[in-house]
Amino acid sequence: MYPKKTHWTSEVTPELHGSNVVVAGWVWELRDLGKIKFIVVRDREGFVQITLKAGKTPDHLFKIFSELGKEDVVVVKGIVESSKIAKSGVEIFPEEIWVLNKAKPLPLDIWSETPDLATRLKWRSADLKRPRNLAVFSTASAILRAIRDVMYEEGFVEVFTPKIIVTSTEGGAELFPVMYFERVAYLSQSPQLYKEQLTASLERVFEIGPAYRAEKHNTDYHLNEFISVDAEAAFMDYNDIMDILEKLVKRVISTITTVAHRLEEAGLKPLLEISKIPRVDYDEAVERLRQLGYSISWGDDLNVEMQKALTKFYGPVYFLVHFPASLRPFYTKRKEGDKSESYDLIINGIEVASGATRVHRRDELEEEMKRRGLDPRLFESHLAVFDYGMPPHAGFGLGFNRLLAALLGLDNVRHATLYPRDRYRVEP
Amino acid sequence: MYPKKTHWTSEVTPELHGSNVVVAGWVWELRDLGKIKFIVVRDREGFVQITLKAGKTPDHLFKIFSELGKEDVVVVKGIVESSKIAKSGVEIFPEEIWVLNKAKPLPLDIWSETPDLATRLKWRSADLKRPRNLAVFSTASAILRAIRDVMYEEGFVEVFTPKIIVTSTEGGAELFPVMYFERVAYLSQSPQLYKEQLTASLERVFEIGPAYRAEKHNTDYHLNEFISVDAEAAFMDYNDIMDILEKLVKRVISTITTVAHRLEEAGLKPLLEISKIPRVDYDEAVERLRQLGYSISWGDDLNVEMQKALTKFYGPVYFLVHFPASLRPFYTKRKEGDKSESYDLIINGIEVASGATRVHRRDELEEEMKRRGLDPRLFESHLAVFDYGMPPHAGFGLGFNRLLAALLGLDNVRHATLYPRDRYRVEP
Repeated sequence: MYPKKTHWTSEVTPELHGSNVVVAGWVWELRDLGKIKFIVVRDREGFVQITLKAGKTPDHLFKIFSELGKEDVVVVKGIVESSKIAKSGVEIFPEEIWVLNKAKPLPLDIWSETPDLATRLKWRSADLKRPRNLAVFSTASAILRAIRDVMYEEGFVEVFTPKIIVTSTEGGAELFPVMYFERVAYLSQSPQLYKEQLTASLERVFEIGPAYRAEKHNTDYHLNEFISVDAEAAFMDYNDIMDILEKLVKRVISTITTVAHRLEEAGLKPLLEISKIPRVDYDEAVERLRQLGYSISWGDDLNVEMQKALTKFYGPVYFLVHFPASLRPFYTKRKEGDKSESYDLIINGIEVASGATRVHRRDELEEEMKRRGLDPRLFESHLAVFDYGMPPHAGFGLGFNRLLAALLGLDNVRHATLYPRDRYRVEP
Repeated sequence: MYPKKTHWTSEVTPELHGSNVVVAGWVWELRDLGKIKFIVVRDREGFVQITLKAGKTPDHLFKIFSELGKEDVVVVKGIVESSKIAKSGVEIFPEEIWVLNKAKPLPLDIWSETPDLATRLKWRSADLKRPRNLAVFSTASAILRAIRDVMYEEGFVEVFTPKIIVTSTEGGAELFPVMYFERVAYLSQSPQLYKEQLTASLERVFEIGPAYRAEKHNTDYHLNEFISVDAEAAFMDYNDIMDILEKLVKRVISTITTVAHRLEEAGLKPLLEISKIPRVDYDEAVERLRQLGYSISWGDDLNVEMQKALTKFYGPVYFLVHFPASLRPFYTKRKEGDKSESYDLIINGIEVASGATRVHRRDELEEEMKRRGLDPRLFESHLAVFDYGMPPHAGFGLGFNRLLAALLGLDNVRHATLYPRDRYRVEP
């Protein structure tokens, strides 16, 4: 039986000089300089150099070395020595090496960034061994933690709402049908209606979970299954929610800053600076775009190109606020002049989050449904909840994969997703 | 515009005597004693008494009082006074009251525990206003946070794996079909294969998300959509994982203990005491059951009744370990004598979690598939991953709703689920 890992490779630092450690991971590189041989071992957190030296290293380890291949799974027990030559300033002189599994030659090159996206996604589990991916998905976990911390601080409780539903949230969006025993149901496109209902009891709720859009988009920033961060709060309006979102984005960026060194070593260019996030009125945005020569009329939605163009005025992160009511779903609260108490959060030109103050009176809600050609009778079970004490409320929905891609500087949301589901991809 | 809530009701304590506060919530109770009138306001965290007193309270508030009904949505601004009579030792003398929404009479009684389960679930959003439900689901959020804290401490990163898949995880279980554009896919019954694959890159991963079982069970402890807490770790075995699970259960119980007062006030009997969790060998369990007169042969699975019977020996929380290999899925590592490195975590007779050391060699895995009548060719994309450096690994899957129900003393897992999905229920 092999001993337990005592340290991640990143924890093996010169301060441990003289200590006995056990590391475990994968053979990243083998170098044979004759009387001295090196094994670079990778684990989730980084790399460490194992040095075999004639006269110092037990003989049987040279035989093990001679049979090792890249990506073999190894456990190494040895003594740490600080080193002026080794890359991380430290090396391990092994006392024992256990080879726990052998690896065949990999189906793609994880030692460079050359493979194309399709190849990477085909062999995704092997591709995830790539140091850049380890950095991205370790950071993703830290970001999730930071997001939840902000939500807890703001008095939100975490909930899980069903993903199998009987009606569309918004009437319009395309849904994936599910055979639920004897009937047809659908995969939820958003927890919108549930989270609104929950403001009447739990007041401030958030959920982080999958959402589904059966849209035939095939772009760099659409997925058909994505992770949605949703929040909704009673007794708040869209400005209160933007305050929370601003705090959230800043917290996430400072989380990224703590691992910036690792991300930059992996070739990424994370967003590390942010000041106050500007809140840009829709009218002003349209005016600016016209000045830039874009053909846009009041009432039109902005496209990605336009949103990118606006970064030259407002920086990489800004809110667009007060969209025309006609552009937003039925549950959005109106403001004067056919506008609405709504906003989008734009990062590097991509809409990452969206939200609004919601309608909290049944009669107004029915009115807004009818304006959009929706039949209130189809929403009766939702509307009924508004009869029993619905508070004013507001919230947001945020695409986690988009947030991750935007903040880490990834050019395709699929790079920010472990196993993406898109128009043509449902495996691995 | 109404002012912002400054305090949850539970934060309005005698120490605030003389302070100005704003509370917001729902009218729970109205009492009219003539010159003195009381409004009990409920929010997520509890109750507070608002006292209107002739000569002290502005006149127009008496008119508002006269028109108030239960569950109306109110914001109250007033002065806190400590009180020897009021239940929580404190009352608020209002300066202003805003009625933000009116409520019709509720379709079920939330002021007692009399409604039956079907009625509660039919009107779930109203039912969730019940103080017991507010306590249960606030505690659920705190438990989720405690679970993640343990996983972070143990070096796990949080992941999200797809819920739309093309093949069954285990061959056997029944799946819900999804129409994914031009093809049929399925809802994932478990992240088992993905989390195992991820041990070859991210090493220690956990996921908290929905899982689907198209089984026609209709019991107090089965759901067709449930929240699964999954973990998997490279370079660990089943004993290491049971150590982590034991730490997790203890952390969760100490989290519950911090809110025990609230849960007990709501009529719940949470589990608050736990010492070392015994690890009971399957052979010993079978022997005990035979002594108790149960008809069970070596190789049989235990049922709920048997698991409950064993609590008299081992207490309410125990592990059953070393199940016959034939009872466990193909990815379970064998032990000598046709047994396996597997375990279940049993709480109050219900299987709450399950796990094992997994097979990490491709040839053994294919062998185990064949023994169970599964065709390895159907799992080729999963098996291929085992060619590229799969480490030894182990993990668990835990049913969050069951854990919550068991630890809070709820007699049906549906009480531990916001909007349950079962054999006959797909709405609300």
